[in-house]
Amino acid sequence: MTQARKKIILDLDTGIDDTLALAYALGSPELDVIGVTGTFGNVVVEQGVRNDLALLDLFGRADVPVFEGLPHASTKDSFATLDISRFIHGDNGVGNVELSESERKAETVSAVDFLVESVRKYGDDLVIVPTGPLTNIAAAVEKDPEFASRAHIVFMGGALTVPGNVTRWSEANINQDPEAADLVLRTCADVTMVGLDVTLQTLLTTAETAVWRETGTEAGRILADMTDYYIRSYDVTAPHLGGCGLHDPLAVGVAVDPSLVTTLARNMKVDTEEPTRGRTIGDDERLNDPNKNACVAVAVDVDRFLGELMDRIGSTIAAAKQHGEGS
Amino acid sequence: MTQARKKIILDLDTGIDDTLALAYALGSPELDVIGVTGTFGNVVVEQGVRNDLALLDLFGRADVPVFEGLPHASTKDSFATLDISRFIHGDNGVGNVELSESERKAETVSAVDFLVESVRKYGDDLVIVPTGPLTNIAAAVEKDPEFASRAHIVFMGGALTVPGNVTRWSEANINQDPEAADLVLRTCADVTMVGLDVTLQTLLTTAETAVWRETGTEAGRILADMTDYYIRSYDVTAPHLGGCGLHDPLAVGVAVDPSLVTTLARNMKVDTEEPTRGRTIGDDERLNDPNKNACVAVAVDVDRFLGELMDRIGSTIAAAKQHGEGS
Repeated sequence: MTQARKKIILDLDTGIDDTLALAYALGSPELDVIGVTGTFGNVVVEQGVRNDLALLDLFGRADVPVFEGLPHASTKDSFATLDISRFIHGDNGVGNVELSESERKAETVSAVDFLVESVRKYGDDLVIVPTGPLTNIAAAVEKDPEFASRAHIVFMGGALTVPGNVTRWSEANINQDPEAADLVLRTCADVTMVGLDVTLQTLLTTAETAVWRETGTEAGRILADMTDYYIRSYDVTAPHLGGCGLHDPLAVGVAVDPSLVTTLARNMKVDTEEPTRGRTIGDDERLNDPNKNACVAVAVDVDRFLGELMDRIGSTIAAAKQHGEGS
Repeated sequence: MTQARKKIILDLDTGIDDTLALAYALGSPELDVIGVTGTFGNVVVEQGVRNDLALLDLFGRADVPVFEGLPHASTKDSFATLDISRFIHGDNGVGNVELSESERKAETVSAVDFLVESVRKYGDDLVIVPTGPLTNIAAAVEKDPEFASRAHIVFMGGALTVPGNVTRWSEANINQDPEAADLVLRTCADVTMVGLDVTLQTLLTTAETAVWRETGTEAGRILADMTDYYIRSYDVTAPHLGGCGLHDPLAVGVAVDPSLVTTLARNMKVDTEEPTRGRTIGDDERLNDPNKNACVAVAVDVDRFLGELMDRIGSTIAAAKQHGEGS
C-alpha cells in the first residue's frame, strides 16, 4: 500500500518564483495539488489567475482548479503592482514570456471559500502554501472560527534574522499586508515561516535553467526564459548573491519535506506601526509561552534542496511533454 | 591531572546583573577570573569600577585586578546614566544597597591595554565576556591588529529574534554604542551573542533570592537585596515576565558551557543608521559566506542554567563567608 499523498493548496501571486513553486509541487509525487488560489502581489490578482490557468495548461494539468482571491489588502481600497515587482517579474508576471491564454476560467467559488471548505474537509491531510501576501488566509481566519486552529500553513514571507528586501526590516509579501500577516502569525495554530533567512541562501543560476531549455520542450523553454529574466533582475538588485533567490519553491519544498530546513520555534508577530511596519519578529509577550504556534526556518540544506528542485521541476517538464504529445 | 581552568576577563558595567555574572564566574571551578575591566552603561565607568572593587572584597577575591575602561562611546563626548538605568539598577548601580568602599584602586594599566595584552599572552586559553557596551572591545580591536582574529568573545547584548528593550529594535548595550558593536560583530573571528532572545527566557524570582538571604551571610544578604530591587523594577517594566531577566550571568554561563544554549551561525552586523539604529541583524552581504564569525544564542536550557546559577552563586557566597571568617 502506498502512502496517501498530502493535499496541498498553493496560494500564489504568480510571479516567476510562484511558477517555479507550482512546477515543484506538480512534480512532487508526495503531493496532490487540489487547487490554486490567486492573490495579488507580484501582479494584480486577475493577472496572477490568468498566469495560473495558462501554466496549468502548459504543464498538462488543466484538471487543477483555480480560485480567484481578494484583490487588495483589507486595510486598503485598491492595489497596483509596484514598479519593483514589474522590474523583477516583468509586466505580465512571468518575465514577459508569452503564455498561451487558457480557455479555462477561474472557478465561481472564491479563493477564501475554497480555503475554508478545504480545511473543514481535509483537516490534517491538507497543507496550505501561500507565497504572496497573506490576505486570503487572514480572510479565511476571519470567516471561519475553526480555520486558525485546523489549518496547516507553510508560507513564504518575512525575514527574522536578516534584513528585509523592501525596507531594511520588511519583506515584500509581509509588506503588502502587515495586518493580515500579523493575524495569521498570532492566531493560526501551525504556521511555518520560510523567509529571506533561508530563501536567499538557495540560489539558481543560468547553469540550471539551461538544463530546462535543453529538454527541447515548450515547458522547459518557457521556464528557462522566465527564470533567466528573474536572474537578470537579481544581477541588478542583489549582485552579491550570484543568482536568484528560490523563495516560493522553497516553501513548497518545506511543505513536502520539513527536514530541508532547521527551524526555530518562536511565537511571532508583525509590527504594524511605523517605523518598523512590516517587520516579522518574535512576540515578546509570548516569548516564554511553552506553546509555540509558529516555527521559523533559519537554516537550509542548500545542496539537497537544489537537487530536489531540479528533480521535481524536471518531472513536471517531462510530464508536460508527455501530455503535449499525447493530447 | 585536572584540566587547566579557562581564563576569563569580565568587561562589566556593574550593575545588578553584572554583579550576578561576577558571582557566577567566581563560583565556577572551570574559570580563572584574571581581571575585571570596567565600562560605562548601567552606571558611569567610575561607579562601575568602584562597585567591582567593593564586590570583589565582599566575595573575598581582592586578588582579582580591576581595570578602568573608556568613559563613553567613541562617537560621543560624554556619558550620563539614563533614567531607566537608575530605575532598574538604582543610583549606585547595585540597587541602592550600601557596599563597603574598597581600599583598593583600579590598576594603572587601562582596560583596553589589559584586554590587548591578555589576548596576546593567553590566546585560545582566554575568553572575554562583555556585559555592557562593546566600547572597550572595539577600542582593543582598533589598537591591536591581531586582537580581532585572536580574541574569543561571548557578549551579553543585542536581540535578533525578539524586539529590543530600549526601542522596538535595539537592546540597551548595543544602543549605547552601535558603532562599537558593529565593529566587533563584523571583524572579530569568534563572537557569541547572548541577547534578549535567550536572556528574557531565564528568569529569577524572590524564591531564589530568599535562598541567598537565608544563608545568613553578608554576601548572601547583599546579593538578595540588590536582586530583589532588580526584580521589583521588572515588575514595573515587564510584568508579563514574572521575574527578572538573567542577562549578564547567562553570558558567563555560556562561556563556561556553550551547550546551555542552541546557537545559530550567522554573520552579523549592527544598523548604525536611523530609523533602526542599534538593531543587531544578519549581514545580508555575508549571508552565504561559508565562514561565519558569529553565532547567536536562540534557545536556552532554562532549568539547567538556573540550577547552575544557584550552584555557582551559592559557592561564591559560601567562599565569601569562609574568607570573611578567616580574615
